[in-house]
Amino acid sequence: MNRYKRHTFLIVLIAPSGGGKSTILRRLIERRPDIAYSVSSTTRAPRVGEVDGRDYVFLSREEFTRRREQGQFFETAEVHGNLYGTSRVFIRERLDEGRHVVLDIDVQGADAIVNGGLPVVTVFLMPPGHEVLKQRLHTRGADSDETIALRLRNAHGEVARAHDFNYLVINDDLDEAVNEVLAIVRAEENRISRYESLEETFWR
Amino acid sequence: MNRYKRHTFLIVLIAPSGGGKSTILRRLIERRPDIAYSVSSTTRAPRVGEVDGRDYVFLSREEFTRRREQGQFFETAEVHGNLYGTSRVFIRERLDEGRHVVLDIDVQGADAIVNGGLPVVTVFLMPPGHEVLKQRLHTRGADSDETIALRLRNAHGEVARAHDFNYLVINDDLDEAVNEVLAIVRAEENRISRYESLEETFWR
Repeated sequence: MNRYKRHTFLIVLIAPSGGGKSTILRRLIERRPDIAYSVSSTTRAPRVGEVDGRDYVFLSREEFTRRREQGQFFETAEVHGNLYGTSRVFIRERLDEGRHVVLDIDVQGADAIVNGGLPVVTVFLMPPGHEVLKQRLHTRGADSDETIALRLRNAHGEVARAHDFNYLVINDDLDEAVNEVLAIVRAEENRISRYESLEETFWR
Repeated sequence: MNRYKRHTFLIVLIAPSGGGKSTILRRLIERRPDIAYSVSSTTRAPRVGEVDGRDYVFLSREEFTRRREQGQFFETAEVHGNLYGTSRVFIRERLDEGRHVVLDIDVQGADAIVNGGLPVVTVFLMPPGHEVLKQRLHTRGADSDETIALRLRNAHGEVARAHDFNYLVINDDLDEAVNEVLAIVRAEENRISRYESLEETFWR
């Protein structure tokens, strides 16, 4: 196995709010600590338990704008009034180290990554249905009723966009969903296009 | 999960002789008994332990030719002087039942399946290098030195064709290789193109 050199890639997890993205991402990294997590920068306020530099790089709107103007972000997006950005330098460095990089990104942000010229695998995480999504948003307790109503309206457009991505994982059972994502990563590592110098290595 | 209907597909395992195809295929079916095995028809003599109707449908050359003329085969190929064929009816019935169908086929036969108009996932199983392949062919003891030399010469062309297939699994450790194939099947089940009536189901 070790003899064969394989290209690494970006893994983009996309989900409507309440798709269980953050939890699945955390579990993915636990099971595959060789995969690097692309820590996003954001202007939104930290939620309880979130740590600066681990969950997000929390920036003032001024600092975010300054970095954006310097071209430090691979992409930026505004979601529910907050700015989010993906660090270009961070991703390049990890890929060069031979590590995959996983990104936690919104539907709007995914397009810029997909069109960014790097090998990308996109996984859309979806709750099993709209009723479950609604329940989860209420249970999470992070949003006002008004914000939940907005997120549900947004979900309409987001689910309609699922067909633009490579994979769909239904997040019904969490352990199951994590295993599906792990299988996707493993399969993608075995895609023929990942292998470099295949024949040379075989006959060497 | 059950709410979402997904299309099934063909899984074609391709390998140079000595790639460990038969063993990996047997283990795949053990772990995923819902996957149907496409039993090939052949004019070659049974090897020790092979059972008619389970490993192959063993046919005389006359009977094989008659069936081929009737269009009963999805594809046929001649390998090392023996005829092999894949039953068209068998595959259609299993797919219609909602089962994937796995095929054990030679590099020559794979093209016909890939171009046959059904959804196909192709996996090339490869020994880690040509030295290991040579050892395995000798250890198996099924072939004369002359046949082994022929198989090794054929491997040159077969490995060169690896890039025509979707996935490459290096069969270094057997358990590992089986897990890679299982991950590929699982990932392919989650490909967005497998899902039918996605949005209708989500909002229902």
